[in-house]
Amino acid sequence: MIDLPALKEIVQTAETKIVMLVVDGLGGSPHPETRRSELEMARLPNLHRLAGESSGGRTVPVLPGIAPGSGPGHLALFGYDPLKYYIGRGVLETLGIDAPIGAGDVAARGNFCTVDGNGRLVDRRAGRIPSQESRPLCDLLDTIKATGVQLKVLPVQDYRFVLLMKGEGLSDQLGETDPQRNGVEPLPVLPLAQEAKKSAEAANQFVERAREHLRGREKANMVLLRGFSRLPSLPSMGAAYKLNPAAVAAYPMYRGLARVVGMKVIPTGKTFDDELATLEEHYEEHDFFFLHYKPADAAGEDGNFEAKVRALEELDARIPRLVELNPDVLVVAGDHATPSLLASHSWHPVPLLLRSKYTRGDGVPEFTERACAQGSLGTFPAVHLMLQVLAHAGRLAKFGP
Amino acid sequence: MIDLPALKEIVQTAETKIVMLVVDGLGGSPHPETRRSELEMARLPNLHRLAGESSGGRTVPVLPGIAPGSGPGHLALFGYDPLKYYIGRGVLETLGIDAPIGAGDVAARGNFCTVDGNGRLVDRRAGRIPSQESRPLCDLLDTIKATGVQLKVLPVQDYRFVLLMKGEGLSDQLGETDPQRNGVEPLPVLPLAQEAKKSAEAANQFVERAREHLRGREKANMVLLRGFSRLPSLPSMGAAYKLNPAAVAAYPMYRGLARVVGMKVIPTGKTFDDELATLEEHYEEHDFFFLHYKPADAAGEDGNFEAKVRALEELDARIPRLVELNPDVLVVAGDHATPSLLASHSWHPVPLLLRSKYTRGDGVPEFTERACAQGSLGTFPAVHLMLQVLAHAGRLAKFGP
Repeated sequence: MIDLPALKEIVQTAETKIVMLVVDGLGGSPHPETRRSELEMARLPNLHRLAGESSGGRTVPVLPGIAPGSGPGHLALFGYDPLKYYIGRGVLETLGIDAPIGAGDVAARGNFCTVDGNGRLVDRRAGRIPSQESRPLCDLLDTIKATGVQLKVLPVQDYRFVLLMKGEGLSDQLGETDPQRNGVEPLPVLPLAQEAKKSAEAANQFVERAREHLRGREKANMVLLRGFSRLPSLPSMGAAYKLNPAAVAAYPMYRGLARVVGMKVIPTGKTFDDELATLEEHYEEHDFFFLHYKPADAAGEDGNFEAKVRALEELDARIPRLVELNPDVLVVAGDHATPSLLASHSWHPVPLLLRSKYTRGDGVPEFTERACAQGSLGTFPAVHLMLQVLAHAGRLAKFGP
Repeated sequence: MIDLPALKEIVQTAETKIVMLVVDGLGGSPHPETRRSELEMARLPNLHRLAGESSGGRTVPVLPGIAPGSGPGHLALFGYDPLKYYIGRGVLETLGIDAPIGAGDVAARGNFCTVDGNGRLVDRRAGRIPSQESRPLCDLLDTIKATGVQLKVLPVQDYRFVLLMKGEGLSDQLGETDPQRNGVEPLPVLPLAQEAKKSAEAANQFVERAREHLRGREKANMVLLRGFSRLPSLPSMGAAYKLNPAAVAAYPMYRGLARVVGMKVIPTGKTFDDELATLEEHYEEHDFFFLHYKPADAAGEDGNFEAKVRALEELDARIPRLVELNPDVLVVAGDHATPSLLASHSWHPVPLLLRSKYTRGDGVPEFTERACAQGSLGTFPAVHLMLQVLAHAGRLAKFGP
């Protein structure tokens, strides 16, 4: 939670509604030739109009220079210090396939890989075998039993799967088996703490059975396990902010992240239009909505400047439906930048708009990185965004007499 | 080190080169008449051109309103929290004369002073006696012996010297003898901790012998000791960032600071041209270079606006040699501002340029305090600069899955 012990004393309830649209990978960077970013190249009449009624600013997801994954990026926007709360890779993969994971469970990200006759790695991703090939292998591995620990193998995509361990007294203090290079054998699962011995034994049993089951195959004849992790115990967002928060997200991982912070997840369809319809339908039931828009990040990750511009324009066309709802606080934020030039998440500060009845005279001229950098909210750590949101929603009392 | 436990997990190696030019006392403040700062008055065609290809920003050396000394100013730029790591006055003086100081040694800054017939201070700086007068006195004091502790007296300049104590079990928890006013006697060296008794006794023995040696002189007939301190134990910059860092600095103190953070110090000459030649000659041997430019600070300390403008113009003329090397990341930073109007270090945020292949479309119009304040890097704590540098050098992996 935001590092403000007095938060619970100053948070107050109000009859106000908040909509936070998270545009995944929102920010970009200027193209060296045109000197204009994706946001600056896109035609965004609705976002620019919204900017004119909004305070502008930029969020720093974690720290200057740090490019965050989706986990830290979203936790910060919800007010959870990403340096304090950590969601491991195994848990994130599990959330990403919408699979249930309990409080004591340990999840690992699994890869099918290929080893040679001496057991040495020759391909850490087994030639990226497609899902139709890996799915029956997952079913096979799902039959493996270990002593005192229940195992589940869940397909993710292509060569990737999740190993879920359920049982009493499990620990995620486990070393990874992926040596991160070819030519050597996979590592054993090492217990990194005294209490992790039982979990390490179960994981090693799984690996040995998997090796036997997959033996003789030309590729995908072994597995690698990484990112052993458990669900972190996070304070509930609803209790911390005296809100009744809900999430509307077409992608499972973001529904999972919302669940981790205690939001209610409202079922929706596969597109942003579905999300908007869901939001409209359930608008009376909650006072805080987290809405997730994925395509901008996907295009940025592909290094496709034009596709990112289009993804932003497609979002823009749907902004009037959000504005129409007229929430007391409407936020357009990003979990991190994904500049097409980098084809990856980046460290750049992320542009931000916040509209409320207090911001109508404070608008920024347009919704771009540059304009937001000059906005009245300034450039600040994303973990403080929820304080701004609550304040503009009339939900924060004065601090101190 | 930067307060980021995950740093060691996300720092990665890369074939990239970084050059960080630290312009001592870089920032200034606008003149009340012209409303223009030293940077704004100077003719800086090369720095302005570089700015056009660089992301701009401003570093806050320690905290808003805090004017740092050279120690904290540089530590922050190297990523060491200046509120956590402290280099005492005695150690800094020792580094400043390029004298060797070992891990357990205690150094104090000494002043010759003048006392009256009753031993009361009448001049805490002994009329600022010149070096040719103080040097033989230092030789005299260097003969003093203390029980179980080896003493060395090293001349610094004018009325200043360093007292170095070497031996087993020394402590720097010692009170200063300078009462900071005239009319009273110098204080004894008090042990401020149980384990400091031996060190206090040795220091007091030194002071008594010094008093005897100097007795009868009209001035400089006594000494004052301040800033007892030991070399702090700092994590090595090379290990923390997976870099092979080197320092090129004409002034001893900055070589000393670089040594404290584990940089290799490359011998160079007395001028910035010498430094550039050294950099060029050794460019293949390291992947990180700290280059120090002193004249801007010296002119600012003298309160000489015109001289500071000239010092900046002389730097500008040499910028093409740096650009010619074409490092992957070229940083122009300052350890603190030294506005001529204040004739001292100041608390003002310090302008910053960072050029990399990611910043070519992001330039600031010129290299001035005002233009950098509008730059995309924003205004941020100097201790985070190395994160920005590593990120732009492709040396930081994503944080969190």
